[in-house]
Amino acid sequence: MSDFQLNILGCGSATPSPKRNPSSQVIDYRRRLMMIDCGEGAQATMRRMGLAFNRLTHIFISHMHGDHCLGLPGLLSTLALHGKEGSVTVVLPESGVRIMKEITDYFCREPQLEIIFQPVSGEGGTVLELPSLTVEAFPLYHRIESYGYLFREKPKQRHLKGDMVEFYNVPVAMRPLLKDGADFVTDDGRTIENRLLTRDPDPSRSYAYCSDTMFDERVANAVSGVDLLYHEATYDKSLAAEARKRGHSTALEAGKIASLAKAGKLVIGHYSKRYNDIEPLISEAASVFPNVIAASDGLKIDLDKL
Amino acid sequence: MSDFQLNILGCGSATPSPKRNPSSQVIDYRRRLMMIDCGEGAQATMRRMGLAFNRLTHIFISHMHGDHCLGLPGLLSTLALHGKEGSVTVVLPESGVRIMKEITDYFCREPQLEIIFQPVSGEGGTVLELPSLTVEAFPLYHRIESYGYLFREKPKQRHLKGDMVEFYNVPVAMRPLLKDGADFVTDDGRTIENRLLTRDPDPSRSYAYCSDTMFDERVANAVSGVDLLYHEATYDKSLAAEARKRGHSTALEAGKIASLAKAGKLVIGHYSKRYNDIEPLISEAASVFPNVIAASDGLKIDLDKL
Repeated sequence: MSDFQLNILGCGSATPSPKRNPSSQVIDYRRRLMMIDCGEGAQATMRRMGLAFNRLTHIFISHMHGDHCLGLPGLLSTLALHGKEGSVTVVLPESGVRIMKEITDYFCREPQLEIIFQPVSGEGGTVLELPSLTVEAFPLYHRIESYGYLFREKPKQRHLKGDMVEFYNVPVAMRPLLKDGADFVTDDGRTIENRLLTRDPDPSRSYAYCSDTMFDERVANAVSGVDLLYHEATYDKSLAAEARKRGHSTALEAGKIASLAKAGKLVIGHYSKRYNDIEPLISEAASVFPNVIAASDGLKIDLDKL
Repeated sequence: MSDFQLNILGCGSATPSPKRNPSSQVIDYRRRLMMIDCGEGAQATMRRMGLAFNRLTHIFISHMHGDHCLGLPGLLSTLALHGKEGSVTVVLPESGVRIMKEITDYFCREPQLEIIFQPVSGEGGTVLELPSLTVEAFPLYHRIESYGYLFREKPKQRHLKGDMVEFYNVPVAMRPLLKDGADFVTDDGRTIENRLLTRDPDPSRSYAYCSDTMFDERVANAVSGVDLLYHEATYDKSLAAEARKRGHSTALEAGKIASLAKAGKLVIGHYSKRYNDIEPLISEAASVFPNVIAASDGLKIDLDKL
């Protein structure tokens, strides 16, 4: 298992179905858990999937429809009741802060957990910066204010070639500079190019979450070059007009966004409950973007194995 | 299947467990569904148990702790989104009306469903009167204001003995009076006692829900003579002090209430998550009240087969 993993807790849409929970995902990044959307039942599924509450630090909410956030009061209440200490940060559209604060003030009265609400508005922007990863919010195009989230690792350091570093007698204090790409100048004034002393860094991995949204090329721009793209595919292409009217996408449109974005791999989800069999949705997306898989509740995707 | 059935949707306590949903039950009475408590996930379980949303008319909330009511916003939102017409009535402690109304105003904006909030306060009282059944709220004794609910069928009509009614030539217009217990006076002035003309009515069945509460004899008085009693049994008797401190009961105390109330049968539930095996809780209750069973998620109990 790599240190960057996507866990699908729920991939259904607003209409509940016995097979699919409403939207929720958890990113497991270097032992830190970050949740994206929190439909009803997310806490129970989190537990069933073995994702420990005490590793959860952030929750990112795309928009304030119930199927994307009504699991939040119960989850926060459980975190508060059962020993989660420190704080948890909930990033959510500004328009939802007042009601969520009222709900948590009412239902989560245990004092040891601090719940921080961090509003997103307008064009979004960086909502979290860790030493090795940033999370950016960007606008989606739904019936109400909605945001996607892009998790992107920062560029990593180059690997030293041990034998070459020894050969040129690079002082220990200089080595971090080589990792950042600097050339080395020897005592007698010769410049040794960095590429002789180091190997390329590990790739910086990225994941983007886009739900709920209608088809819009600005979404493709926002997630350009992403390794793994989750894009909603509520309907099939025969219902394109309905999709647009409801602020949703078809599977074909999800494929088009992945193609325009030059994504590495596409995961579709947020299926309307009318689809028991989602094979046709996969085929539809694959007609324009072949590297596609279907989200299912309980699915784990390793960012190193796309 | 009889026309009076109890469905257990969740029998866990506040700490979530992968095996047990938080509290929720549905009474199926002559095709009408009435829910008692609505922990997170109740709507999904309702669907899994084949209980149709469009038959749901009332929801009774015992108290405003999250594990007893946080499924309400999602359930009401689903009812509103998916074609439930008319109204649904939510009976709940008065102190919870403001927050629940705010939540549903925010998340359930579809206009075709009317959500009626009916507050209970003080000593409770009759909260629903149907032609053949009443529902009464009565106080429980928890950390916050909490109510139990008693479902009691009204006395039923006596059955006519067809052959005797013919023999005495009872006019059709008189027959309903016989069903209500009246004697019959023949044309020549003889009084025919009712018991000669009718048989006893079917028994009037009753069910009471008591969760969350500490042990209190007033609860036994409130549910005196009930056919089926659900009483919480969060702890075993070794934790009696903890139970009292947290406003809960032990399994032994649940048995004592059933015994004091001269109930027909006891169902225990709301187990602390520390109990994987609840056999010891059953034995403990059975030591003072033998006719006891354990609630489990998905259990259906027929009021005619106790």
